[in-house]
Amino acid sequence: LGKPTGVLFVSDSNVAPLHGEPVRAALASLGLTAGYVELTPGEEHKTVSGLCQILQGAFDISLDRKGLLVGLGGGVTTDMTGFAAASWVRGVRWIGLPTTLLSMVDASVGGKTGVDFHTAKNAVGAFWQPSGVICDVLTLQTETERMYRGAISEVIKTALIGDPDLLTLLETQPEALLRREPSLLSEVVERSVRVKARIVGLDERELGLRATLNLGHTIGHALESAGGFSALTHGEAVGLGLIAALRFGERRGHTPRELTARVHDLLVRLGLVHRLDEQALTRSVGLLGKDKKRAGSAVRFVFARGLGDVVTEAVQLTELEEVVPSLADPAG
Amino acid sequence: LGKPTGVLFVSDSNVAPLHGEPVRAALASLGLTAGYVELTPGEEHKTVSGLCQILQGAFDISLDRKGLLVGLGGGVTTDMTGFAAASWVRGVRWIGLPTTLLSMVDASVGGKTGVDFHTAKNAVGAFWQPSGVICDVLTLQTETERMYRGAISEVIKTALIGDPDLLTLLETQPEALLRREPSLLSEVVERSVRVKARIVGLDERELGLRATLNLGHTIGHALESAGGFSALTHGEAVGLGLIAALRFGERRGHTPRELTARVHDLLVRLGLVHRLDEQALTRSVGLLGKDKKRAGSAVRFVFARGLGDVVTEAVQLTELEEVVPSLADPAG
Repeated sequence: LGKPTGVLFVSDSNVAPLHGEPVRAALASLGLTAGYVELTPGEEHKTVSGLCQILQGAFDISLDRKGLLVGLGGGVTTDMTGFAAASWVRGVRWIGLPTTLLSMVDASVGGKTGVDFHTAKNAVGAFWQPSGVICDVLTLQTETERMYRGAISEVIKTALIGDPDLLTLLETQPEALLRREPSLLSEVVERSVRVKARIVGLDERELGLRATLNLGHTIGHALESAGGFSALTHGEAVGLGLIAALRFGERRGHTPRELTARVHDLLVRLGLVHRLDEQALTRSVGLLGKDKKRAGSAVRFVFARGLGDVVTEAVQLTELEEVVPSLADPAG
Repeated sequence: LGKPTGVLFVSDSNVAPLHGEPVRAALASLGLTAGYVELTPGEEHKTVSGLCQILQGAFDISLDRKGLLVGLGGGVTTDMTGFAAASWVRGVRWIGLPTTLLSMVDASVGGKTGVDFHTAKNAVGAFWQPSGVICDVLTLQTETERMYRGAISEVIKTALIGDPDLLTLLETQPEALLRREPSLLSEVVERSVRVKARIVGLDERELGLRATLNLGHTIGHALESAGGFSALTHGEAVGLGLIAALRFGERRGHTPRELTARVHDLLVRLGLVHRLDEQALTRSVGLLGKDKKRAGSAVRFVFARGLGDVVTEAVQLTELEEVVPSLADPAG
């Protein structure tokens, strides 16, 4: 499609001071002058009104159909930039520059873009593939410990679904992982992206297979919503959701106990899962009905049967509501 | 995809009292209970905040991916319903029930959905095809005279682009057309839809051919924007834009004078074009840069060479800004 007629650069006030300058310099060296929108950081700002800030930026520079959006930051920024790109003049190109582990291994791959709507996570959005994603693992050095660790849940989930060797890699080098050793991170990101890209390539619109990527996410999302998107990070919620999904799978006869134990052990060693709390699970139950994956009164739930072996099965909301609180750790 | 798991019915406070009841009854007879959103009528409410009203309705009934949106009304309602359908949980089905001539012959065909953003018409949206469109020409009896007549501009444009016999039909039966004679209207709507559907079918994403549908729209949109979307109706603006485009085509050596005269004559007989005013054209010029069809500093302008024979050509914005005011009717 050739050189863009205009560029809008999107970042947030945390990330821009750390990593914005090289991006501006790169755009300038290509002879591209860019408009700029600085978002307020945080999942609670991943809203229609945040989206309108980006659209306003596109309007202000009269960005046309051959324009380009560039999103630098975490999943919130890249999801919002992608959705703005999908919607502005019904679709312009965009490039993702993820600066968090979560956005590198998850948000940036697969073309799901969007914003939250009240408690409904990613309820408003589009499937809109980026023209390119550039992951610089050195940017991960500046990520907060909490966000970085949380994202490892998503890597573990990805390993469970499609790359047993990746799980072994995490188990054998937890210290290097926590130290954010760049060469290890390169391998972790590359392997994770490969698994996700393979699945998305086979089922972009989530008609079947892609749904397996939601392992740990049905309960995870509900926990995240119940905490108002701020008590738990997405990664922390997914870690807890993974354990809950594995335990639920045991009861249904899908998941071997050893698999649950192995994943639980790894999550604990990485400081990711402290406690799967009964009260939090109970609070989350009412929000399951808002889950996008719901079709009528049932949810397509993802169960793990083994490494690289997952299945989806319809579970009635009523059953889920009954079982979820009982998946907690024993009290005391 | 089967029976929808939920339905959200969208209309506006003008149309719902006139035509809403049969739709509710039809949904009820199918065993579908629907949520309802009533929009404030008017192009000035075709905004992101209007869109949010529909999204709120979807949220309130927990509409899931197998849900359905039904939009009853003019192009504003169907465009907004379609975009809400495109965006809600990244895409649900929708059905259009257009009740105006403009939405029957234009807005409902081709899957362009969206909202305006400040002065940028349809600047935020998606390509999202409806699962079905049902045109009941009897609903046109309740359309205001001004809106009904304006829409005939769009029919004339369609005839010019792809159906010479439709132009003859309009020329031979102007009284029946203005009387809204149902059997004539059925033929007019059917022929118009057929032309547009043929073109859209060949070029859904407007990479080339589809742009010819914008005949009369580059200047038309600018006139409409300059009037704040309220001084002129879309149809009136397109009527004026058509004349301007034909005159511009004469100067460029594309358009035979007789064609301009024939179309001008028909528009005047139908009470559609009064005066192409120099001041209005001058005011509109500055807004041409916000036109979505712009690529860099040039606009792809559509010229008519004859009946069923249109071409697009890149025109520099600077040239357009110079020539547009001179396309006015002589003063006095």
